[in-house]
Amino acid sequence: MATVSDVTVSAAINSLSAVLFLVAFAILRLQPMNDRVYFSKWYLKGIRENPKTSGPFIKKFINLDIRMYLRFLNWMPAALKMPEPELIEHAGLDSAVYIRIYLLGLKIFIPIAALALSVLLPVNYTDRNFEIMSTKVKDLTFGEMDKFSISNVPPASKRLYVHISMAYVFTIWTCYMLYKEYKTVTDMRLHFLATENRRPDQFTVLVRNVPPDPEETISENIEHFFRVNHPDQYLLHQVVYNANKLAKIVNQKKDLHNRLIYYTNKYERKHDKRPTTKTGFWGLWGTRIDAIDYYTKEIEKLSKEEVAERERVIGDPKSVVPAAFVSFKSRWGAAVCAQTQQTRNPIHWLTTWAPQPRDVYWDNLAIPFIELNMRRLLIAAAVIGLTFFFMIPIAFVQTLANIESIEKVVPFLKPLINKGPIKSVIQGFLPGIVLKIFILILPMIVMAMSKIEGFVAISTLEARSAAKFHLFLIVNVFFGSIVAGTVLQQLEEFLNQKPADIPRIIGVSIPMKATFFMTYIMVDGWAGIAAEILRLIPLIIFHLKNIFLVKTEKDREEAMNPGSLAWPVTEPRMQLYFLLGLVYATVTPIFLPFIIVFFAFSYLVYRHQIINVYNQQYESAASFWPDVNRRIVISLIISQFLLVGILSTKDAVHSTPFLLVLPVLTFLFHRYCKNRFESAFRRFPLQDAMIKDTLEKATEPHLNVKVYLRDAYIHPVFKDVAVFDDFEDYEYPLVATKRSSRNGSQIGTDQGSPSVDLTSISIV
Amino acid sequence: MATVSDVTVSAAINSLSAVLFLVAFAILRLQPMNDRVYFSKWYLKGIRENPKTSGPFIKKFINLDIRMYLRFLNWMPAALKMPEPELIEHAGLDSAVYIRIYLLGLKIFIPIAALALSVLLPVNYTDRNFEIMSTKVKDLTFGEMDKFSISNVPPASKRLYVHISMAYVFTIWTCYMLYKEYKTVTDMRLHFLATENRRPDQFTVLVRNVPPDPEETISENIEHFFRVNHPDQYLLHQVVYNANKLAKIVNQKKDLHNRLIYYTNKYERKHDKRPTTKTGFWGLWGTRIDAIDYYTKEIEKLSKEEVAERERVIGDPKSVVPAAFVSFKSRWGAAVCAQTQQTRNPIHWLTTWAPQPRDVYWDNLAIPFIELNMRRLLIAAAVIGLTFFFMIPIAFVQTLANIESIEKVVPFLKPLINKGPIKSVIQGFLPGIVLKIFILILPMIVMAMSKIEGFVAISTLEARSAAKFHLFLIVNVFFGSIVAGTVLQQLEEFLNQKPADIPRIIGVSIPMKATFFMTYIMVDGWAGIAAEILRLIPLIIFHLKNIFLVKTEKDREEAMNPGSLAWPVTEPRMQLYFLLGLVYATVTPIFLPFIIVFFAFSYLVYRHQIINVYNQQYESAASFWPDVNRRIVISLIISQFLLVGILSTKDAVHSTPFLLVLPVLTFLFHRYCKNRFESAFRRFPLQDAMIKDTLEKATEPHLNVKVYLRDAYIHPVFKDVAVFDDFEDYEYPLVATKRSSRNGSQIGTDQGSPSVDLTSISIV
Repeated sequence: MATVSDVTVSAAINSLSAVLFLVAFAILRLQPMNDRVYFSKWYLKGIRENPKTSGPFIKKFINLDIRMYLRFLNWMPAALKMPEPELIEHAGLDSAVYIRIYLLGLKIFIPIAALALSVLLPVNYTDRNFEIMSTKVKDLTFGEMDKFSISNVPPASKRLYVHISMAYVFTIWTCYMLYKEYKTVTDMRLHFLATENRRPDQFTVLVRNVPPDPEETISENIEHFFRVNHPDQYLLHQVVYNANKLAKIVNQKKDLHNRLIYYTNKYERKHDKRPTTKTGFWGLWGTRIDAIDYYTKEIEKLSKEEVAERERVIGDPKSVVPAAFVSFKSRWGAAVCAQTQQTRNPIHWLTTWAPQPRDVYWDNLAIPFIELNMRRLLIAAAVIGLTFFFMIPIAFVQTLANIESIEKVVPFLKPLINKGPIKSVIQGFLPGIVLKIFILILPMIVMAMSKIEGFVAISTLEARSAAKFHLFLIVNVFFGSIVAGTVLQQLEEFLNQKPADIPRIIGVSIPMKATFFMTYIMVDGWAGIAAEILRLIPLIIFHLKNIFLVKTEKDREEAMNPGSLAWPVTEPRMQLYFLLGLVYATVTPIFLPFIIVFFAFSYLVYRHQIINVYNQQYESAASFWPDVNRRIVISLIISQFLLVGILSTKDAVHSTPFLLVLPVLTFLFHRYCKNRFESAFRRFPLQDAMIKDTLEKATEPHLNVKVYLRDAYIHPVFKDVAVFDDFEDYEYPLVATKRSSRNGSQIGTDQGSPSVDLTSISIV
Repeated sequence: MATVSDVTVSAAINSLSAVLFLVAFAILRLQPMNDRVYFSKWYLKGIRENPKTSGPFIKKFINLDIRMYLRFLNWMPAALKMPEPELIEHAGLDSAVYIRIYLLGLKIFIPIAALALSVLLPVNYTDRNFEIMSTKVKDLTFGEMDKFSISNVPPASKRLYVHISMAYVFTIWTCYMLYKEYKTVTDMRLHFLATENRRPDQFTVLVRNVPPDPEETISENIEHFFRVNHPDQYLLHQVVYNANKLAKIVNQKKDLHNRLIYYTNKYERKHDKRPTTKTGFWGLWGTRIDAIDYYTKEIEKLSKEEVAERERVIGDPKSVVPAAFVSFKSRWGAAVCAQTQQTRNPIHWLTTWAPQPRDVYWDNLAIPFIELNMRRLLIAAAVIGLTFFFMIPIAFVQTLANIESIEKVVPFLKPLINKGPIKSVIQGFLPGIVLKIFILILPMIVMAMSKIEGFVAISTLEARSAAKFHLFLIVNVFFGSIVAGTVLQQLEEFLNQKPADIPRIIGVSIPMKATFFMTYIMVDGWAGIAAEILRLIPLIIFHLKNIFLVKTEKDREEAMNPGSLAWPVTEPRMQLYFLLGLVYATVTPIFLPFIIVFFAFSYLVYRHQIINVYNQQYESAASFWPDVNRRIVISLIISQFLLVGILSTKDAVHSTPFLLVLPVLTFLFHRYCKNRFESAFRRFPLQDAMIKDTLEKATEPHLNVKVYLRDAYIHPVFKDVAVFDDFEDYEYPLVATKRSSRNGSQIGTDQGSPSVDLTSISIV
């Protein structure tokens, strides 16, 4: 439908905006005042400090060195320079493997593109289906783009064998690269796990749904159970408190604290007038009063509440949740407990590996286990609802994309939008943007859903959100865009088609949608990634905080929001590009360079961000890779079925069985990979645990594991360090060491008494 | 199609043959000479001995007591008398739970039948669809049977709401009974496991795919690995030899031995002439020679071969398979090892619970692990092939069932087969018989396939065979019979139907096939079960052996073939009846009594057989129950979908969403059961292991587990007891004890050396 010039205009617009973002970034990052926004990772690591300049005061904020501006693309080679082992050391394995996915995209698509452009493109372009068709059917108009696609090959042409054999080559190549990558990532993970430092979660198991015992407290019950059933290995346990209300109070207090600082700062700057506020919601209405006094009082009130609640939580046996973090004397003991079933009733005494302390999502630990199934069921229904009701707006977007239908609906706009460049803009730019806005709201909904499901680790929450988002993207953005306007407007009509006709209908639509997806890639993949590196929103927030809230160096550190990879959004997004690339590789080869630019550019940008900015909340040692691999395989299989549909529109039905071999082979490949590699991502083998244990015993014979583990899994609100400190968790080994040195004398069993050391909790 | 009289004739024939079988059984079982055939279980238990009669010689073979013949149905109450705990003690949990499946059938279908016959039958019969139809369409003829079915309710009738609500009631009742039964069986299993005696498999794990080590033998490698990674628990291991060739020689020898005995007996009876035989195949051709000399020589030759092969196997390191039975000091240690992953590479050092020694299928232990995936893949393809190519003969059977088509094909038979009773016989009897013959061959094919798949336990082989057979029965007997003749004759035509029409096509066919399935039940379910109790084939074989081969009391014991439950055949068969019952409950309620008679009669017969005859090869502690439960749930879901199809033929399409709730709810019920109960059948919880260990330590403090386990997992051909003895394994604890008393002094590690005690192997 769209012409080459439509795509060219769109490409121009999007490339221009990408370049603009990059220039803005290049300038902004050189300003010392933005240093903490663009180099936050280094600040967090304590390597970089506030730039010290001996020159004039202005130099503290703005870089006046002209030479540096000339090298504004300097960050690109810098981003590529750090070797991978150093990158793992610097940013963790999750991040290092994450950018390998982009690299995998390049490894898959560059050879495919080379082959497709040199073989399939000439095959398509030199054929003459459109010439034939346009002589036969008068009204039919084709975009020039379609000349590069399979649409230009007439039905039952011998040339289609080229496409079929290419499908085989592409499948084999993709599977080969997937296998190689899975193997590499598995090795990286195992090496990482083998070499990583001692961490509390290596020794700890989360036990859930402890059955009630009328004669013992939960803590006693847990201790007795593990003393009996893991007699040689049990070390200690940490009960879990339902401290959600306390956490809420602490958060409220933090908020009030910020306001107090804001008004104090204001007062310090202008000593003439004490700042005032109103008592109502957000200070918008109510009586006007002195702000500093008001917030000081409010904070005092909340502090008292906090103390009372803290005492209630620790004192009340009902606030102890029937779950606990149970630690063992060795990694071997923990591995055994995590992998075995404890009792007859499979829903009692459930043991799983404990997440890292910083990865625990504390709010969900208090959910009764019985509720979980019901919650998951409800969310499953909600996800299906969300996935299929979003169809409606997407279908609407699709009608926008079709300029002819706009003209029909609003005929008076016809003279305006029919002018060359405007038409191209609408055709090429608008639909992508509208779709993008829909998709921007979604991650929050999806994350909220995952939280309701009740998983207890942030990493799991993110993985579940990614799965939901991926389903959504495939159903709505991919299939929704392809099918809308042809069949799905009426589901009933669809069901009344002969099953043999469904692939045919989709097959007709796919080549026609190539330009739409090209535009989508340019908006979402090119300009969107360039916007990512600019970090406009964190930049603005940092400066606002800097002006209003920051007093001390510590405050400034808190004002930084380094962010993280946003796994639940970015991974499904790149899966969409894998899908698009694999589908269009045989259909419209000219599509592939767009995909390659996306992967290359993203690789560069995210490598830079990981080195300089992001601070991961947790380290899962690439445990997400089986998901990544599975989704690429799913994309591959979808692309194979769609090719069957496309060829059936070309009167090449006899090729169907030949093509149906491909998904079967691909599925077998997937099973093989799963059997061969997946368990390395799910379980921790006893041999590895034993090696680490033995090594540790040899190198640190006097290590007191009990002291090390004692307070590792205390709810953050009970920690004596400032709860306001978001990054405190990040340095947890230090925290544990700090505390353990004080508790060093308390070794021995404190049977029955809650393990939280009440005296050591300093009320902030 | 069929008339009431057709069904009546068929019922009469089948009831009559069932009664004849029963009478024959009642007479034969009273004859002392058949005692070992009909009471083999008691002989095996050593409780019953050869009947001693003081009267005339004839009394030793034939019972002359007239009074006993009068009470010829005596076995029925006797079969019911033994209480369940005693039954478990007597025949094992597998058997006791097996007959509970028939009881479950009764529990499900008696209330359903009561409700269906009192509510649905009047609703159907008092309607008048056929009256209306026959006035409209002239050629249309309905059987009287159809008046009792849903077919007699006209389209869009309000009466259909009765059927829909009944579907809900039936589903809820079935699920409720399934849940109760699952819970009961789980409790029975756990109680059984908790109270059962010490068994070698409780302490033992089968480790497979031991990676090769250039510096160590397999045995050394295994010992080192477990000493390092399970230091406190590892006790000993038993390597596995590839003794398949040796086993073959032993079997050949056994065969020749039988022939020798046959000729010796012959010679002893008639001293005038030494028996001769021919050297060719089966003694059918070749030179005529003296039989006794010939076989004595042949046996000597084979004995030498056996000794050579035995030495080769034990001496050659290449005959050691990279697998072993590893035993631990406690059940806890074995449970840990069986449930955990040992090394990084998930396909090395694979550990699973060892099957019972008598359950091990030794031939498959030698299959290289790498081959297994390929084998399973091939068999999966073969199963699909088998399942779908069997369609063709089944479709042929269906044309036979239709008497009109016979008349068309062979018109000269018309006068013959159109005579009233003959027509009824053909209509009612033949199709069932033909189908039955097909199905009789199948279990062997299916078992051979399972063996190729390479599972190492007989119980697993049987479970896998049952799964294949179940798939076959559902696809071919059930759907094949329903669909054949309407759509499946041409698969292409089927694919070209609108998807919405497929349920409609099946829906039309189901009520029409009711009489066919009634006949099928009577042939397969009534007469077939009665034939089971008669044990005609084992009876004949026993007497043949008795005449030709038996010399000593021990020979006579060997001549008995008590048989076992034939799980791979009987379980899928009863699943077919569950399916038929659930499908026809709402459609043709008059169908249900036939099902109930089947379940009641089978319960009686199998309870009798289990008490008096069968000797199970293994005891899995009812580990098959999850399969049983799942398959009944599958039947339930199939029946729900079919009801949707049936109602769509009644212009009640608006009821579809209302009915589609049912399969969803049923599936959720299944998930719930699975989560709640299944792990009790798959894993052995650590707490239970610990309890048993502790108890044992307290009651038998001086038990030497090492001695107990030492020879438990020796290949049967290496055992010093006669390998000809099929039942030797059954008493394995005695065997182990016998040996252990001799090996008692050898405690200590025999590192590296094969654990088979060469000196103790006495060559038979």
